[in-house]
This record gives sequence, structure tokens and C-alpha cells, in this order.
Amino acid sequence: MRAALLSVGTELVRGEIVDTNSAYLAARLTEEGHEVLAADTVADDLDRVAATLRRLGDAHDAIVCTGGLGPTTDDLTTLAAARAAGVGLQRDPASLAVIRARMERFGRVMADSNAKQADFPIGATILPNPHGTAPGFEVRVGTARAFFLPGVPREMKPMFEAHVLPALRAEGTEGSFQIRLRTFGLPESTVNDRLAGIEGTHGVVLGYRAHFPEIEVKVLGRGAPGPALERQVRAAADEVRGLLGEEVVFGEGELTLAAALGAELRTRDLTIGTAESCTGGQCAALLTADAGSSAYFAGGVVCYSNQLKVALLGVPEALLAEHGAVSEPVARAMAAGARQRLGVRVAVATTGIAGPSGATETKPVGLVHLAVATSAGVDARQLGFPGSRDQVQRLAAFAALRLARDAVRALPRPDLS
Amino acid sequence: MRAALLSVGTELVRGEIVDTNSAYLAARLTEEGHEVLAADTVADDLDRVAATLRRLGDAHDAIVCTGGLGPTTDDLTTLAAARAAGVGLQRDPASLAVIRARMERFGRVMADSNAKQADFPIGATILPNPHGTAPGFEVRVGTARAFFLPGVPREMKPMFEAHVLPALRAEGTEGSFQIRLRTFGLPESTVNDRLAGIEGTHGVVLGYRAHFPEIEVKVLGRGAPGPALERQVRAAADEVRGLLGEEVVFGEGELTLAAALGAELRTRDLTIGTAESCTGGQCAALLTADAGSSAYFAGGVVCYSNQLKVALLGVPEALLAEHGAVSEPVARAMAAGARQRLGVRVAVATTGIAGPSGATETKPVGLVHLAVATSAGVDARQLGFPGSRDQVQRLAAFAALRLARDAVRALPRPDLS
Repeated sequence: MRAALLSVGTELVRGEIVDTNSAYLAARLTEEGHEVLAADTVADDLDRVAATLRRLGDAHDAIVCTGGLGPTTDDLTTLAAARAAGVGLQRDPASLAVIRARMERFGRVMADSNAKQADFPIGATILPNPHGTAPGFEVRVGTARAFFLPGVPREMKPMFEAHVLPALRAEGTEGSFQIRLRTFGLPESTVNDRLAGIEGTHGVVLGYRAHFPEIEVKVLGRGAPGPALERQVRAAADEVRGLLGEEVVFGEGELTLAAALGAELRTRDLTIGTAESCTGGQCAALLTADAGSSAYFAGGVVCYSNQLKVALLGVPEALLAEHGAVSEPVARAMAAGARQRLGVRVAVATTGIAGPSGATETKPVGLVHLAVATSAGVDARQLGFPGSRDQVQRLAAFAALRLARDAVRALPRPDLS
Repeated sequence: MRAALLSVGTELVRGEIVDTNSAYLAARLTEEGHEVLAADTVADDLDRVAATLRRLGDAHDAIVCTGGLGPTTDDLTTLAAARAAGVGLQRDPASLAVIRARMERFGRVMADSNAKQADFPIGATILPNPHGTAPGFEVRVGTARAFFLPGVPREMKPMFEAHVLPALRAEGTEGSFQIRLRTFGLPESTVNDRLAGIEGTHGVVLGYRAHFPEIEVKVLGRGAPGPALERQVRAAADEVRGLLGEEVVFGEGELTLAAALGAELRTRDLTIGTAESCTGGQCAALLTADAGSSAYFAGGVVCYSNQLKVALLGVPEALLAEHGAVSEPVARAMAAGARQRLGVRVAVATTGIAGPSGATETKPVGLVHLAVATSAGVDARQLGFPGSRDQVQRLAAFAALRLARDAVRALPRPDLS
């Protein structure tokens, strides 16, 4: 179906918040085979909301409108929807009872402003909201089925998934199947270039989404749902993996790089520890973001000062004096020291110049030395990262986890037979 | 001026990326006293972009359009702008030379597709792009001054600041002055309620922006630029500080909570270290995000396992056995141990249950014990946080930094005379 999105809210047109609803709705509608043609945003202004709804309703089959269903006087979307639909408002006793019960459960008395949330355009289908007081509704505007949902994402998303998508599916859209591949380590333009032929060969659509520093590659196939469609998409995804390499494509779906490393550790019954200088705790934070990380992450040290590199990791003072803290020998000594002092089987170390200051003639901002120590010995990498302090730190942390993952993958797996 | 925003890009209406440009542009235009009435998004479709521009041009004084200026065949915004303006395209030799020189500097040969980026609507004013190949331009569309900028934020923002805002300022808008106060520790509804009277009393507009877990309060005054306007806004901001408290309002503008803590440490010539369990490195990562942190941050340990709490921080095993790792005595021992082992004057410790698993009958998910050790002794707090693992970890890290800041502020400042 040809769909349009409308976000209502003065806070949006003033830039006080970023509208993340539109991207969510657009992505989900696209995945389901609909075509989103427009995504508009207007202030809480009765005439504007009504006029925009009429305009969108004349050119689309579906509208998803979010925001402006709250209890306050500046929440005018319901009234605007009624105007655009050419009908009046009517209070729904059942919704009123639900709102009153909800308020009472939280120990509050229902105000007149809340009662307003039980008003709907005459003839509208009411969409229940299990996570808030404002129900949504569906009404026809022009040629479009228009759905009205609250603007709060945690209320909006479940309502969209429970009511809007199924309603639109019933209209008989094509099916679709999608695989999301997560990559790290190649620039977006290179990923693009390498995958140039895939769409034609496999009859799929590729989408790219950058979550710095990762790039997600979405492989989308459209057609009758079933094993044939899934096989077609899986074949395209396999070719993407082949073209980019298993080091670059570290996982699918929600699997983070840290969790992918965790899975490799778990398979081999290994533990990991971190020794961080320039990444300042980000490697540990990425690892511990994974809920299962206590099974393999023992701990780490952030040794920002040289004294702590010596005291906590046993890095020889002579090494620091001769090569400087940002050097391959120090990175190696940090990893080896952490492996021993933390009592872990795998240790990964970072030292570098995150900037903006700290550069020398031979050591520019962005220079990072990484090392990983395992039972197979210590491996090191010198890398140079562009960007701000933030970006250098984040790129270095991801590169460290990737180095650790590669090193762990090279270790033998226990006999699983 | 009455302004409209237009974001062009198929990746936007497919939800592959979140449009952050619109919020940035809306916020900056609002700050400068303009009124943003609409923010629309359309796919890279020549007819749609041209039609949308004409519609917006008929109802606004200014349009800022981003995206679709790239070299590929699906970048059609320039052609659409020419159509909407009712003029043809013309190649600009000076821009062509700049593009060629830029490509050569990066060791690449200019393709025909890049030459296209030197085409502009006849009569347009060209806006140079110091950070990319695609210049922008300004042209009249209907009653509006329409500005066209690339979609890449790091190219777009400097061009907007350098060309668009000054051009619109010259049109004689009202002046404005704004102070952004950063807060942590109160829910948005409480912040709202406490500040309810400020707008009326001080003739300012308050805006709220949530960057989890912070809430930013923007105090905006409009009027003739000058000291009187600044005094008015400053008085309102001072009252906001008074109503929320100095513990809650930790800074202004770009100052992070970690940097605010850093400033207090610097003033007293103190060093800090971290001892983290449930926050898994996030306290250290927040501290080291500040470029000047090496002056006061020595390092930290992430002791996820109990063995490392003992080995790295000297937490007595008996304490762990008696009270469990998530307890006030262990938090205190971690802070005291870190202060000694890391050789720092201030140490902050976290231990808690981030979830989703790990809860016991007496210790629910979200329970966090914090402690801070200074020359004045060890102070501890028990807190309970709602939300996902992510949210609990982040809230706990912020609360730890806040506890450290409060403790440091209570220490005497060296005599500055």
C-alpha cells in the first residue's frame, strides 16, 4: 500500500526532540512490503493538522499519525482527525471507564482533561493502549485508512504492531522476508561497491543502515511468504557474507559484536579480561552490555596513567620509557600482564591517542595499538582512525573486540562429539 | 520568519536512517527566533520533491532542504529545485574546478556523475561546502528563500551555520538569547512541575530535551539582542537552578556530568579512580570521554567476578560471603580498596543487579549500591532503578558520578588567594 506518516507535535518542529517514530514506522512498513511516500511533521495546530491529513488522505492508501492524543489543551489531533474525516466527536463510555480505572490504579483522580481522551471521531474504530491512558483509533480520511496513535514510542510501537500492521496485512499486501547482517571494519562505500551485483542476481533489495561504527546490511525479499522466499533471501545473504568476509560480517539481527565474541568464548569455555588505556573502559562496557557476559567476562583494568600500567598490569617501566605508552611493545605487555593478573584465558589491550591533544611528531591523533593475549601467544595491530575523540575511542574499542574475536576463532574448539 | 524543512531521501522514507537533521535545524531556527511550521520528508522522486517544494514555497518565508545533492542518478534535488523555481540548470565552472581539485587531492579522477554536482538552477546563489564535494545553493521558490544543503550532517551543519542562519538574520528577525541547563536525577514530570511558574514570571520560554538519562532545560528569551535580554534570561535560569537544586543542575551548555565532576576535582587538585561491577566500565568511559580527563582520572578496575574484587581491590572474602557482592559493605570496601590500590584521592564504586537475570528474593533487578571514598571517609547510597539492563547500567553510572561530585564539592577548596 502507498502509505504516509504524520508526526504531530510542537516539540518536534521546534527540534526539542528527535522524531524516531517515523524511522521505526517507515522501516516496519517497508519490511512488510508497503511503500512509504511521505513523512510529514506539523505543530499542534488544529487547522494545519486537519489540512495535512486531508492532503495526505487524498494521495495515499494508509496514513499513520502519531502524537497529539494527550490530555492537555494543546493535544488537538483527535479533533483535527474528525474535521479531516468530515465527522463530529463522540465520547466512548467503555474507553472512559478504562481511563478512570487506570488513573485510580495509580492513585489519581480522573480530571476533565483525561475524559477528553475518550472522545473519538464518529464511526472510528478504537485501538486500545495497554501502556498509557490515550487510546488510538482508525478512521477514513479521503482514500486512506488513517490510524492515530500516541507519540510516546513505548505506547505507540505495541499498538502499531498489534493493530495497524495486521489491519494493513489483511488488505492483501505482498509478503516479505528479511535478514539483517551486522558488519564492522569496512567503510560504507566499500560495502556498497562489493555488493553492487547482489540485487540483480538474487532478486532482493539491499538496504544499509549505519549505527556508528557498524554498518547493517539488510537483505529484503518480497513475494509469497514461505520457504522459497526464505531460501532466496538466505542465498543472497550467504553471498553477502562471502563477498564481505566472516571477519566483517560478525552476526545477524540483534547480535552485537561483543555478544558474537562472547559466543566464541563460550563455545571454547574461555574467559576474557580487558586492559584499556585510550578506550577508557569502553571495551569492558561493550562486553558487559551483554546480559550473559558474567559467564565469560571476569573484569578489566583501565590504566590511564603510566603508574597504573606498571602497578596493575606489570608493564615494565623501561618499556614505557623506551617506547612510550602508545606503542606496540606496551600494548603487548598490557595484554600479557592482564592475562596473568586478571587470571583470564584471553586478554585484550588498547593504547592510543584519542585526541584532540596528545599527538607528537611520530604519533598522530588516531594512532592506536591493540594487542590480544591467548594461549597461542600475543598478537598486535597498529591502526589509525579518523574522527573526533569520541569516534576514535569507539572505533578502537570495536577494533579491539574484533581482534579478540579473530584470535579466539583461531583457537581450537573443544571436541563437541 | 515562517520556515519549513524538507528532507529528501528514499533511505529516510524507508526508515533506514533516522533523520536527525530536522531536529537540529528546527532547534537552531527556533533559537534564532524563527517559527518552523512544517518538516516534511519525501523519497528521491523528481515529481514529488518538486511538488513539495512548490507547496512549501507558497506558504513559508524560508525553506531549508537537505539531501539529494550527491553524484548518483537517484540524487535529483537540484533538478527538482530548478523545476520548482521555474528555471533551467546551468553548470558553474568555478564549482566544477573546486570539485575536480578536491577529487584529485584524494587521488581520484572526476567522473561525469561528480560534474553533475556543479549544476545549479539559473540565478541560484552557490553555497560552498568545505567538507564535501556537493556545494549547496539558494534559490527563490514561491514566496520563500529556499536553501539546499547536503544531507550528511557533518557537511550540512557548518554550511547552515555559515550561510543560512546569517542570510535569515539579515532579514531582520527578532533576536534571542538562550541558556541550556543540564540536569540529572529528577523525572521529567517533576522538573516540569517545579518550573511551572517560570515562563509567566520571567517572560521566557522553557524547552525540555531528554538525552537519557539527562534532562536539558532550555531557557529562551526573545527580544532586541543585548545585555537586557541576557539579564532577563540569566535571572530565569538562576531561578531554575534554585528550584531544582545545584545537585540536579550540574552544568550549562556542553558541560557533561563527568566534566562537571572533573572541574571540581581540578579545582581541588585531586585525582579519581573507579571500581565498577554492575556498570561494567561505563563510569570510566564517561570520565575518559572528557578530553582533559588525563589530568584527574588515573584509572579504574572493572571487577565483574568476585575473585577480582578480592584480587584487585582487596575486598575481604568474608564480606562477600556474608553480605553478597551486591551490598553496602562490599560497595564501601570496593571504594576504599580502589582509593588505596589505584593511589587516588577519590574513588567511586558500583555494585548492583543490572538484570535481566541475577535477582534474588531480597535483591531485585535495578538494586544498586554506590560508594565514594575521599579523605573525609567513605559514603554509600542504596538506589533502585527501573528499566532495561542498558538503562539500569547507565542510570547507575550517572548516579555514581553524581555521588562523587557531591562528595568532592563537600571537600574544602584550596585557598585560592
